[in-house]
Order: sequence, then structure tokens, then C-alpha cells
Amino acid sequence: MQGLGVTGGVGLAYGAMSTLGLAPATAAAPRRFQAPAMGDLIGQAPGSQSIVILGGGPAGLCSAYELRKAGYDVTVLEARTRPGGRVYSVRGGTTETDLNGETQTCTFSEGHFYNLGATRIPQSHITLDYCRELGVEIQPFGNQNANTVVHYKSDTSISGQSVQYRAAKADTFGYMSELLNKAASMGALDDVLSPQDKEALASFLSDFGDLSSDGRYLGSSRRGYESEPGAGLNFGSETKPFAMSEVIRGGLGRNFSFEFGYDQATMMMTPVGGMDRIYYAFQEAIGTDRIRYGAEVTAMRNVPDGVTVEYTQDGRARSITADYCICTVPPNLVGRFANNLPADVLTALEAAIPVSSGKLGIEYSRRWWETEDRIYGGASNTDKDISQIMFPYDHFGSDRGVVVGYYNTGKRHLAFESLTHRQRLAKAVAEGTAIHGDKYGRDITSSFSGSWRRSRYSEGAWVGWKGAGDSHGGAATPEYTKLLEPVERIYFAGDHLSNAIAWQHGAFTSARDVVTALHQRVALS
Amino acid sequence: MQGLGVTGGVGLAYGAMSTLGLAPATAAAPRRFQAPAMGDLIGQAPGSQSIVILGGGPAGLCSAYELRKAGYDVTVLEARTRPGGRVYSVRGGTTETDLNGETQTCTFSEGHFYNLGATRIPQSHITLDYCRELGVEIQPFGNQNANTVVHYKSDTSISGQSVQYRAAKADTFGYMSELLNKAASMGALDDVLSPQDKEALASFLSDFGDLSSDGRYLGSSRRGYESEPGAGLNFGSETKPFAMSEVIRGGLGRNFSFEFGYDQATMMMTPVGGMDRIYYAFQEAIGTDRIRYGAEVTAMRNVPDGVTVEYTQDGRARSITADYCICTVPPNLVGRFANNLPADVLTALEAAIPVSSGKLGIEYSRRWWETEDRIYGGASNTDKDISQIMFPYDHFGSDRGVVVGYYNTGKRHLAFESLTHRQRLAKAVAEGTAIHGDKYGRDITSSFSGSWRRSRYSEGAWVGWKGAGDSHGGAATPEYTKLLEPVERIYFAGDHLSNAIAWQHGAFTSARDVVTALHQRVALS
Repeated sequence: MQGLGVTGGVGLAYGAMSTLGLAPATAAAPRRFQAPAMGDLIGQAPGSQSIVILGGGPAGLCSAYELRKAGYDVTVLEARTRPGGRVYSVRGGTTETDLNGETQTCTFSEGHFYNLGATRIPQSHITLDYCRELGVEIQPFGNQNANTVVHYKSDTSISGQSVQYRAAKADTFGYMSELLNKAASMGALDDVLSPQDKEALASFLSDFGDLSSDGRYLGSSRRGYESEPGAGLNFGSETKPFAMSEVIRGGLGRNFSFEFGYDQATMMMTPVGGMDRIYYAFQEAIGTDRIRYGAEVTAMRNVPDGVTVEYTQDGRARSITADYCICTVPPNLVGRFANNLPADVLTALEAAIPVSSGKLGIEYSRRWWETEDRIYGGASNTDKDISQIMFPYDHFGSDRGVVVGYYNTGKRHLAFESLTHRQRLAKAVAEGTAIHGDKYGRDITSSFSGSWRRSRYSEGAWVGWKGAGDSHGGAATPEYTKLLEPVERIYFAGDHLSNAIAWQHGAFTSARDVVTALHQRVALS
Repeated sequence: MQGLGVTGGVGLAYGAMSTLGLAPATAAAPRRFQAPAMGDLIGQAPGSQSIVILGGGPAGLCSAYELRKAGYDVTVLEARTRPGGRVYSVRGGTTETDLNGETQTCTFSEGHFYNLGATRIPQSHITLDYCRELGVEIQPFGNQNANTVVHYKSDTSISGQSVQYRAAKADTFGYMSELLNKAASMGALDDVLSPQDKEALASFLSDFGDLSSDGRYLGSSRRGYESEPGAGLNFGSETKPFAMSEVIRGGLGRNFSFEFGYDQATMMMTPVGGMDRIYYAFQEAIGTDRIRYGAEVTAMRNVPDGVTVEYTQDGRARSITADYCICTVPPNLVGRFANNLPADVLTALEAAIPVSSGKLGIEYSRRWWETEDRIYGGASNTDKDISQIMFPYDHFGSDRGVVVGYYNTGKRHLAFESLTHRQRLAKAVAEGTAIHGDKYGRDITSSFSGSWRRSRYSEGAWVGWKGAGDSHGGAATPEYTKLLEPVERIYFAGDHLSNAIAWQHGAFTSARDVVTALHQRVALS
């Protein structure tokens, strides 16, 4: 560190130490990411340190982008012929051959697409900061909608009915409020509620449940109208509530918590024109000459003072040796490379279990969901295999659009994964028709589906860590923790090594951690 | 009707009858609007029937637009120099002198604006159908946001704290679920809940409230994090819940019902570039030659076989006589015209009481609500006079934007109405600073405010009908009902004569009713 002080003065030395995480930090303040800076690499020629990055998805391109800020010589190897990895916007012209052996070519109309991978961004995620930094225009993503429907089986008379979210909420909140109000006013909760609490609670419940003056839920305009109120004496006619027991046993509220989950609550954002816009922007910032597409890695080995990666490109065997390597390849695929990784690292990689998930996009030549069902974005939910139907967040009010006919995971997606595309479409349309009516099967002009476990170079939508339960990360299991440390000069990065698995934010924060660690090592070496 | 049958054949006669509302209709099906059609005016020369329309707002322009479909000779008189009336998008260059005598000139940056009047459109409203028909591009309007805050006074320790909606919801739903679960499981509701109901309810409440296995609310990731979860071992740190009594007595949930109200529930839509885009599109469809701007009506009188309207334009007195008149002028202003309306009609007009409301737009040169508060659209709510702070729904991720510093009604707006603009801004910034911190007062580059009761040609934001209570319409009060009928050849139209007062939908449905009635009269005459 002495050298830095001498060369750059005290200010630089402090700045560099701060960058390197050595200066005292305010304990409570969240650590802000400091990009690697040229100023930290005193005495080194620009570009003298080389990094090979395996994978041109979010973690790989973010790593390359941040390292370029300090002038590192980066090379990204990407097996696909496009950036983004599992961030994949399907458009007219998209062609893909899956591991079932089927080739699909998308024929969506100009300007229409859907995101087969990541499609939405929570407000708190640094993904939005990269959009800002890279100049990627963003817009709202409709993640909830009062006019979409829930459609569930139950042992009630409303089993298999499509019920608008607004009606499901009004009835659920209405009866919930009526019941709690009744219990509180009869004194059943006096051990935990003071008289002032009870008064405030009654006032809240009356509004929240739209209760009558005697504390009952008798229906609400919030449910919606059979016919819309208009002018003059057209007061509209409100729909009638379901009975309390039907609402409760019908489970109409089983998905309500989705929309106030930390990472799914409205507002959600998305780039204008497709999520992959972020990665084309990264590509431009990094420089296409630093990204080798169609490069299939076959070997990755620590060698003295570096890492050698072998790959094939255009049918020819190639190799690259760099000072360091950042491997962002999905953990389930790394073990297939010829490698000299220790056995415990290989075992750790195997603890990441790929999840089955996928989507099917259907282009319609008529936006029936807007003109007939008055649905502008958002999703309908069901306990059928399709799980949900997602309505487009763009091209509102125009003459066509792409609906996502299913987005499901696990067992429900397994019901589609092995099918041909035609079979997937037939099943999706049959289930969608049961929910949105016969129009769901009409005016279809094209479609395209993808299953991430059957997608070459991914073979999984994301991973779950053995022993980590339902957490969004590895929950510090031994295998997860193992992979946070480099193996000599090989670093691992990706959303699988974060607490935001399946989110771009997870990949970016992992990339930032790795470039910070790598940069510290280089700067102090 | 015989003439139509003879001239056009039975098919036309039936079609015409259907248009005229004389043919039997399916009882349950909501009546679809049939625009006036040339084919109904057998034996009449195109344009032989003239209609003068007072007011170039939603009702006036919609009337003119629909009547043009049948070739009526329409003339719109509009006192302002722009279309839209109370639909008013304020931009750089907008100049307005209010009835306080103050002149403001807006200096917002290119492309930035806010809607001083109507700003959002529910999915069910025919406003969206006009956007589609007129080719007005629409986009989502953020009407709720988990990251905006509530800020209320109470006798609890959280009085005057800014609490994110996501935290307010998590705590409120958590304790509400805990309480109801407790009451139900102790048997307090056994008279209304069967064992199966109780089981289903417990399952719902556990998820809805994010309860612990023993049925308690102990906090939730839904509240949010002090520091965001990232990669590796950065699990983030969840914020801590408030105590049950604080949440209940603090009234954190007092505004929750807003977002599932029939006409405010997400998704809400708005035209790209400002609500006034709809009226410029109407203007283009109608033809600017048929709209006379700067025309201040001074008299409106039924005369034999017509209506004569006197007005001033460019300082000169003018007059127009037409076969019919549609008066869309706010009811509180009609009585000021020289007129020969019957006394009971004048009395009825006076039963429409103007509401006080307005907004103030603040342009900031820095989108601190995005970069610091992670807020992308939506509104913060408070019991302070400003009532709410609305964040922009456009220009996301850019370098500047216009925040609506207040949108309030009644008593809370009266606290601003008589102030100068500088005073309004100072008060709004002081209250906003208490909610969003000192940054609320920094980086302000310009501002513009408007109060509808002080706005010439409106003198009210909308009306409430005497005796109609909180209804969205006139609730069939005698005065409201009176004005639904024409006075000889003068028809009244506007949102005030609908069950969607203050909504464009109300103005459009009223306009449709009036043009239908007028067209029937002409076609049968």
C-alpha cells in the first residue's frame, strides 16, 4: 500500500483503500459497490491483467463490464450466438433447437415478443441501476390486475369458475373483516385488544371489508358490475357476492400474498422492447470484439499463474490462457468440462439442483383480453398445469399481441417439458379456454415455447440448493459456501451464488462480489 | 317508420329500428352504443341538421365526434384556446391566469408534464375504447406502489413516521390474520364456521399473514429490508414489525381500500404523453374548422325551431343559430348565460355543487424518488393537507421528472386554493419534506399549480349533487333527473349527468345518451 500513497498522494491512497475495503466504514450503512478502478492498479500497465469469463449472461457480462472500468483485458466466451443467457426475448426470426430435438422458428409479427426467461424487475434490484447506467429505457410491468381471474378446483359450487381478482378480493376481505369484527366485538380477543384497539380495528375493518353499518359483508361495488354504470339513470348492476363458506373453502385468496411478496409487489418494471435489451447494451459497452459467441467450453483448468480454457468455435478447437477466470456457467454443467477442480468443489456444484420451468407465447391477431375481458396486462392464476396466463405489457390498444399461455415450475411444468410444441400448445389452449372461454382458441397466428431444462447450455431454469429449503439462496449450506471462494484462479459467479436466485439482481451482486475480490487480489499483488 | 321500410327495405328498417332502440332487445345483454348513422336519416340531405355544442371538453368533443358519423353539421364553441376542458396537461409554455388574478407560465423541460385534471383511466371505462378508436397510444398508470409511504398522525409511537406501503400491509395483514386465526381456533366463530371452513381459513390466514407455525405474526420479508439481500452470505436484514397496537391504532391501513375500489384498482391506464392527447385526437377527427376556440358564450336561448347562442370571440360579439344545442358547460356556470330556461331548470342546475380540488406539479432535476427511495410511480399518502404525493409515470430512469406535490379535495384543498403559487409551493414542500426528507426541497427547477374552483370557465373540479350523498352520480335526485331531459331543443351533457362523476367515462356516456336521443328525434321527425 505504500506505493499507492507515494504515487497518488494521501487522497488516492485513502480512496484506493476504501475501494479495497480496507478503510474503516460506517457500520450501519450498506456497503456501496465500488467498481474496480484503474487508480488502484498502480505500477501495472493498463490491460496487463487478463480475465477470461465463461458465459455471456447477466453474471458474465456484468463482470466483464465492471472489470473494463479498470482496463482489465477481458474475454467473454459464450456458447450461444446472443448475449443474455437465460434472459431471452423471443421474437420473429428466433430459432431454437431444444434437447428434445425439436426446432422451432418464431414467426411473431414485427415488434412483438415475450421473455422466455426473466421478465420483470423489482424496484429494489440493482438491475434498474444498470438500466439507468446503460441507458436502457424501462416501463412498468403489470404484475397484478383486478380484472384478471382466479380459477381453482374446490368442493364448493364455485369450483372451476373464473372469478375476477377484484371479486375474489372483495369477498375474501369482506368476510374476513366481518368475522374479525364479530369476534372482536363479542369480546373474544379482549386479552390482546384494548378498548381503543377494538375501536380502531372496527373502523379499519368497516372500510377494508366494505361492511354494512351492522358489521356484515353484503357485497360491494369493488366486486365489479354485470353492466357498467353510465350516464343518466344507468346505475349499472353490481355483481352478487359468493357465500362466505364458498369463498373460504373455495380458496379464492390462495394467491393473494404473491402481490405483496418482497420481490413481486407492484410497481414492477421491465425494459421497453424486451429484457434482452439490457444485455445488448452490456455488449455494446464491453465491445463485441471482447465477446466470442458460439464458443463451447470443453475444458477449464488452473495452470501455474493462470487458467487455461479450451473451447470449440466454428467446429475448431481453440484455447485461451488468462491470469484469472470467472466461471458463470450453470453449476450443473461445470462438471462436464475437463477440469482439475478438487473433488469437494465438484461435489458442491452437484448440490445445485436445476429447476424445471418454461413458458409458451401465443400471438393473437386480436386483443380479445382488452376488448372483451377489459384486461390490460397482469396474469390470471389457476391450479391447472398452466399455472398462469400472462397478458402482454406492451402494444396496448393495438391489433395483436403475445400472451404467455403458461409460466409454471416443477411438477406443473413437467407436464409440458417432454411434449412437442404442438402438444404443448394444444394443452395450453385447452386449459386457457376453460378459463377465458372459446375465444382463447381463436385468432392464434403463431406460437413458440421453451423449457429451460431442455435448453442447451442451461439445462435448468435456475437451481435450488440441497438442504436450503425454500430460501432464495444457498442459506449458507456447506456446498454453497464452498463455491463462494475461488479455486486458485477460478472464481464462480451467478445468481445461484446469491440470495436472489432466478433474479438478475442475484447474478449482478454475485458478479460484483467476484470482481471486487479479484480486483483486491490483483491490486495488492 | 314506414318511410324507412319502403326506402331501405326490411333489413334497413330493422337496422334503423335497432339503432333507434325500438326493436326488441335481449333483456340481459348490456346495450351497446350505436353511433348515429347516415342511414337512419332517410330523405334528409347530409349536413342539413345543425347542432351547436357548448364546450370542447370530453362531453362536447365526444358529442361532436359521434354526430359527425351521421354527417350532422356540428359547431363546437369553446371558451379556452385548447381542447379538453378539465382534462388539462400542463407543459413548458402553458400559461394560465386564475381567478385569484395570478398568472403562471410553466417552464417544465421538453417532454415533461403533469395532468392537472384527469390523469388515469380504469380498464372498464369507454375512455379506453376511444383511445383505441382514435389511435391514442396508452400505457400503464402507476396507481399503487409498495415502496411509496403512508404518513399519518396518531396517538402511537409511529405517529408522523413514513412507513412504506409494503410494511404497512405486511403488519396490518399479519396482525389481522393472527387475530382472526386466534378467534377462530378458540371456537369464537363456531356458530358461522364449520370445521372445514375453519381449516380452510387457517390455511389462508397462515399464507395471507405470513404467520409462524404457531399462528403468530412475527414480521415478514414482505415488509422489506434495511439492507438489500445480495450475493454470497449477504442475506440482507429484514426490517422489524411494529407492535400490534401501534399498527391498529396508528391506522396504517386506512387507505388500503383505495386500491381495490372499483374505479381505482390496478391496472390503470393513461395516454402516452398526457391525457390531453385524447382531445387533440378528437379535434383532428372532428376537424378544427368545426371548433371555435376563444368563444365565450354569453347567451343561449330556445327560439322557434332552433337554438340561438351568442358569444364573443376576439372581442367581437357573434351569434349562431342551430337546429339543436348540446350544452356541456359546467352546471354551475349555465345560469350566468342570458337564457330563457324555465325556473325549475335553473334551480336544478344550482343543485350541482362545485368541488374544490387541484394539483401542484414540481419539476426536479434529479429523480431522487428512484435513486434514493426506489419509487417508480405510484403515490405516497398522508393526512396532511397535501393528501398525497404522486410520482411520475413516465421518463423512468432519466435525469428529471415532474412530481405532483398535492392532489387533494375539499377542506384540504381549500388550504391551498387562495394562496399564491409561491405560497402553495412552500407549503407543499414543507409537508413533502416531512414525509420524504430534506431532498424533497432540493433540486427543484420549476413548478406550476392550479385550483379548479379558481379556473376560469370551470370554477369547480367536478360537482356533488345536493341530496345524493357520496354517490358517483345524482342518485336520481329530482334536480339531476330534471336535467336528463332536453329543454325544447337544448340538451345537457357532461360527467355531472352520469354515475361516473369526475371521470371522462361519465362525460362520454352522457354524450352518447344525448346524441342517441337527439338522433332518434331527428330521424323520426
